[in-house]
This record gives sequence, structure tokens and C-alpha cells, in this order.
Amino acid sequence: MQDVRGFLERLFSAAVAAAQPERVLADFLPEPPTGRTLVLGAGKAASAMARVVDATWPQDMSGLVVTRYGQGMDCGRIEVVEAAHPVPDLAGQQAARRMLDLCRDLNADDLVLALISGGGSALLSLPGGDIELAEKQELNRQLLECGASITEINTLRKHISAIKGGRLAAACHPAKVVSLLISDVPGDDPQVIASGPTLPDPSTAAQARAIIDRYQLTVADSIRQFLLSEQAETPGPADPRFEGDELQLVAAPQISLQAAAAQARSEAVPALILSDCIEGEAREIGKAFAAIARQAKFHNQPIAPPCVILSGGETTVSIKGNGKGGPNTEFNLAMALALAGESGITALACDTDGIDGSEDNAGCIIDETSLARARERGLDPAGYLENNDAWTFFDAIGDLVVTGPTHTNVNDLRAIYVAAPNDPE
Amino acid sequence: MQDVRGFLERLFSAAVAAAQPERVLADFLPEPPTGRTLVLGAGKAASAMARVVDATWPQDMSGLVVTRYGQGMDCGRIEVVEAAHPVPDLAGQQAARRMLDLCRDLNADDLVLALISGGGSALLSLPGGDIELAEKQELNRQLLECGASITEINTLRKHISAIKGGRLAAACHPAKVVSLLISDVPGDDPQVIASGPTLPDPSTAAQARAIIDRYQLTVADSIRQFLLSEQAETPGPADPRFEGDELQLVAAPQISLQAAAAQARSEAVPALILSDCIEGEAREIGKAFAAIARQAKFHNQPIAPPCVILSGGETTVSIKGNGKGGPNTEFNLAMALALAGESGITALACDTDGIDGSEDNAGCIIDETSLARARERGLDPAGYLENNDAWTFFDAIGDLVVTGPTHTNVNDLRAIYVAAPNDPE
Repeated sequence: MQDVRGFLERLFSAAVAAAQPERVLADFLPEPPTGRTLVLGAGKAASAMARVVDATWPQDMSGLVVTRYGQGMDCGRIEVVEAAHPVPDLAGQQAARRMLDLCRDLNADDLVLALISGGGSALLSLPGGDIELAEKQELNRQLLECGASITEINTLRKHISAIKGGRLAAACHPAKVVSLLISDVPGDDPQVIASGPTLPDPSTAAQARAIIDRYQLTVADSIRQFLLSEQAETPGPADPRFEGDELQLVAAPQISLQAAAAQARSEAVPALILSDCIEGEAREIGKAFAAIARQAKFHNQPIAPPCVILSGGETTVSIKGNGKGGPNTEFNLAMALALAGESGITALACDTDGIDGSEDNAGCIIDETSLARARERGLDPAGYLENNDAWTFFDAIGDLVVTGPTHTNVNDLRAIYVAAPNDPE
Repeated sequence: MQDVRGFLERLFSAAVAAAQPERVLADFLPEPPTGRTLVLGAGKAASAMARVVDATWPQDMSGLVVTRYGQGMDCGRIEVVEAAHPVPDLAGQQAARRMLDLCRDLNADDLVLALISGGGSALLSLPGGDIELAEKQELNRQLLECGASITEINTLRKHISAIKGGRLAAACHPAKVVSLLISDVPGDDPQVIASGPTLPDPSTAAQARAIIDRYQLTVADSIRQFLLSEQAETPGPADPRFEGDELQLVAAPQISLQAAAAQARSEAVPALILSDCIEGEAREIGKAFAAIARQAKFHNQPIAPPCVILSGGETTVSIKGNGKGGPNTEFNLAMALALAGESGITALACDTDGIDGSEDNAGCIIDETSLARARERGLDPAGYLENNDAWTFFDAIGDLVVTGPTHTNVNDLRAIYVAAPNDPE
């Protein structure tokens, strides 16, 4: 293959396109109600989703959605608010409070369209009880750094919130709530996406308390007290206020992986999907994927080259250094180190939301030349990994993938191309 | 399938059998020399290999091999010494010194059969220069606990040794050395197996020093001084003393994985080999493999159930707690936690040498009932993982796999069975 990088970027584009609301959302919209329509939403895809609803909804409606700073778009009849992610801020808190106000006097013949996507958990943040935003922010910061899974993070978030874990839908009662979901969580469990503001929550306050213990988090007294109060329990699956509600999965990691695989096959490259829900410490998972790529190269297993090995999910980074970078750059730097310049292996690792962690890049690409090019510049690849500084590393060698925000989020895409033995590069 | 555990144990047995010297070694023996034959060897398979040579070699010969305590067997004309593993002791040091003495006055028409297998690095230990055994032991202990790869561990060991990294073969010069190797290292690189006492070493003293820095190891002054001396450099690929030497790979992880796959297929279960060289932190790799097993169950990828997903290699454990257990039990406990009782997934993780880390077990088996059975006994699975106490966990629920020493070593075998949707268990 002449241009492996271009090929891998086309796979990433296909994966992102399959998750983009303007391509997929309209087919999932329900029949209009006899009463009013209220659109509520939160997440990295909220404004892209709201645009589709505004453009296609045949009746009067109003609404409020919250998305990440810099990602708002004009959504006509639906107000768009921007707020902070991944650490919540006052703007998200105000939006959450306004949403609860908006659904206060809904009737049984009204319809709520809930547009829920990844990132909605931080964006739609309203601490319960006497918990201060700063206290919740501090807990959030620790959660993102301690290596907890997204499921654990969300379990804890739900139980210290006044809006998550089904509380928003409960507040909409007796109106019917139709949740339209873009999944960024393993298994596509609806109640986990954006901490499930409109879905019943099977988790308990006791489980939330256990997560604090497991990761030895330092939490404010207000949080400890709230988690021991009755308010901490979320409405569960048996709660009658969810009766008649509906949900639709609009986009998901597996759907995007299939789109990337189809793109590869359309270019005559066999594709193997390993998993849509890879979790774990990015640098360790990078070593395992290097071993799988070697196996393809040397033993034609689990798939013979030329081939592309695809996976989704979301790895995590336990931060120990003070550098810049997200899980995709960290994964790929670890993989490059494990491959040690092995020829014929090229890998893209990008977040489908267009932002890997907190920098400006979706991810990066490595190939057999990455380490050598870095060392020519006097850079020590292992040192950059050690300092959690993979962004700086890939920025220096010009191998970041920068797309800007994609206005959707179905987690990471890893695409590893293994060349055939005689494939010129 | 009625008995998934029995099935997985048969796969493990097939993998071990394919690496057992009495089954495979005789075919690799060279023609006898016109001069004398000297057999030298070190590793977990040394005594099993020496037995085969003693039983089949048609000429006079003598020899000395060193293996792990409790694993020595009567090898007739070849003396067997037992020594400590994974931390070297005086017995291994004395055996190493005797070996160097034995090859001192060899001639050009003599033959040295070098029987090299995993574990040989610790068993054949002779510190260079003024380095005390206790100082080397302490460094070894840190190396095993810091999370360094086996390649890194061996690079450092070679450069502070008087016998590793080709030094033994150099001492045999001008005799011809035929190395018969059982590989336990990624990529089956001969100079890495048992720290390559009979193979040229491309690594340098500078690389060894960098590993000390990378993992912030505390080393004795004698080690620092030796690593800065000329003696620290090992004989490299251009050294003329290696001319005429030969090597044969007798057993390797990939060969054993193929045997396990053949056993599965003979029982009508499709098998997929992911990699023969998985490395990384055991608990993180466990999460990734759980995600791959889920993908098979829910999306028929990378292989449709019923199926078994096989992999080799050697994961590592960065010890933080004070419990008991090796990488296989730790891998499987992490995988069980990530699977959270998911039905229809059963996994064996065992070391082919029969000893997972330092306890009495080869590994363990998990299934959908493992966590529930543990919790019924009041055990907290996550707590056992946190404390690096997976051996105690699996011992308590009766799910250890205990084979005793197998007298060979081609690293770990992970075999994950995913049941078909209607497969009764």
C-alpha cells in the first residue's frame, strides 16, 4: 500500500461518519405527541443532535441542550449552552438546574426528547444536597486520574447528583421521555451513557461508597454525608415514573467499527474487529496490541497480512508525570516502544470525538519510523511515556492526528495495519 | 460443552506436551564429534533435556546441568545440580563456576551440547568482578518486582555476569557449540533465552545502565563500577569465537499454541491464536482479554462461538500488596472482575512450567460463577487483586490448577472458551 496513513485516516473518518447525527439521527425520531415537545440533551454530540431535531421536527417545540465549550452550533428553536468538560463548571450546573425547571409542569400528553451522548455526565452536573461544585470538581479530577473505569466513575457521579441516574426522567413525569442515545460505554448500557439522566439506575449508594474506598479517594464531608442519606439513592428499574418511556441507540462503537471495517474491505484490505470495549491502562494495552500485530506479521494469526486489526472502547491513563496527552497518544507511544521499529506495522489511535484527553488532537499515528525519527531529534521515547507526555512527543515528530471536534463520540478507534511481507511502503 | 474445565485442561496438557524434551528433543541432536562431547545446560527444562541426551547419545560423554530445586532427575552420565529460582543462590553460582572450568581445555574437535531453557538466567548465575551474590540477588529481586520486561531483565543480567551473554560459549572456544533451545521469550530470540550464555549478545553495557535508571533501581557500588568497566561488555555477533556454532529451537510458545489449537479442533472447537508473545501488566491485560471475550460472545468477532481464544507470552506483576500469586492468577482474577459474571465465558491461565510465580500452582481457571462463589464465602475479589493475593483467592474457591513442575517452559498459556448462545454448561 502506498499511503498507509491516508488509508487509516479514511477508516477513522468512516467510523466518525457512522456516528454523526446528521447522517443517522432522523431515522430514529418518534411520532410527535398530542401535547408539547420539549428537547433536552447533554453530551459532546448534543448540539449536532439538536440541529437534526430542529431541522426535521414537524411541530412546535422548545428545548435546551448542553455541550462542550467550543462545540455549540446554532440549533434554531433549541437553545444551546456550552459548559466545561471533563471537569464540570458553573455553566453546566446552571444548565442542569434550568432543565429540571423546564420539565417541572409537563403533562401526560407531552413528549420529552432526550438527546444523550458521551460527556453528558460532566456537562450536566448538579451536585446533590449541600455538595459544593468545587468539591465535586475535585472528586471528578481524582476519578479521572485514579484509573477507575468509566462505569465506576459514573456510578459515583450518579449518586452524588441531583440530575443523573434517572433523576431527570423522574422529574419529567408524567410526560413520556424518548431517549436517543449515542453510546460511548462498554456494552452500550443505556443507563451508563452520560450517567443515564433519563434511564433507571440499578446501582446503589453502597456501591458508590465502595468506589471511594477502592481508589482511596479524598472526598469532602458533604459528599460522604450525602452518600449516606436517602437522597443518594437513584430511581431504580421498578420506579413507575419510567413506564411508557422509550430509548433508541442511534450510534455506538460497534456500529462505527463495522463502518471502518467496511471501508477497509472496500479498499481490498481484510479487517478483523477484536473488541468494541477495550478497557485498561493505555500503556499496558499498547504492549498487548503490539504482540497481536507481531503475531499477524510473523504467524498470519489472528488474521493474515495485509490486514487491519480494529478495536474500540476506551483505555485509561493513571497520571504520574506532568506531561500532556490522552489515552490514544499514550497507547500508541507504548505500542511503538514495544514494537521497537518492527517493519510493516502502522497504527492509528484516535478518539472519535476528535479530542484525545484534553489537548487539541484526536490522536496520532505510529509506524516503523516513529522511534527512529524521534531519536534523530534527540527525544527519548520512553522518557516521554514515563512523564505522560505523549502529546508533546507526537507533536514534535509531526504525527498527531488533528480533526477538531467531530460533534459526536463513540470512544476510541484503534486501527493497526500490518503489511504483507512484500508490501512496499 | 459438558466439561469446559476438562477441555481447557486438555488444551494446556497439549501445549505442555509439545514442549516436553522427551517428546521432541531427540530429533534435534547433531552428529557426534570426532573428539569429546560435553553437555552443559541450565533452565527449568535442563534435567528433562539432559535425560534425553543421556538416553540417546551414542558416544562417551560427560556433562553438568543446573535446574530448579525439586526438579532434578537422574540423568545418568550427566550430573544434575539444583539451584534457586527466581532469585539466584550459591548453588547456581558454584555450578556456573564449575561449567566454566569444564570447558577450559576443550579442543577444536570437541562438541559442546548446550541445553538452554527458561529460568537458566537465574540458575546459571555468576556475578562479574567484585559483585557479591547478595548484591546481585537484591538487584534481581528489584528487577522482578519493578515491572521490567523479561528482555530488559536479561539485558541487565548479562552485563553484570561472568557467564551470560555468550561468555560461556566464548569459554568453550575452540570447541563447536550446538545450542538446543526451549524458548520462553517474545519472538524466540535465542540470545535472550536464559540470557543467552552461548549466543552472541548485541546489547551493550550502556543499555544495561539505562535500565537501572529507567526503573530507578537501587544497586550496589560494585555493580555500578562493573557496568562501567571493559569486562561489562559481552561478546557480540562479530566475535570470531562463535564461528561454526549452531543453534536449534526445540520448543517455543508458538509451537505449543499450535498444539493447543489442534487439540481444540480435534474436539470440534474452533481456535484462534491471538499472539505468542503477550506482555504487559497482568491485571490490565486481563481487562483487554475480557473485552475480546465479550466481543466473541456478543458480536461473533474476532471469532464466533463456540470457540477458544489462545495466547502465549508472559505478563508481569508490579507488586504493591503483600499477598501470594503469579501473573496467571492475577490475569484471571482481573479478567473475572472485568467480566463481572458474564455467562458462557471460561478461562484458563497457566504457566507451562507448572509454577505460576513462586507458589505451587500452574495457574487457575475462572468461569461465570467464580466471583459469586467467592462472595458467598465472604471474599472481596477486588480486594484480593489489590493486595496481589490472587493465589489465596483461587485457593479459597478451589480453582487453582496444580500440575507440579512440568520440566519444561514455554511461558504462559491463556485459553478462553466462549460458549455458543445455546451451549449448556
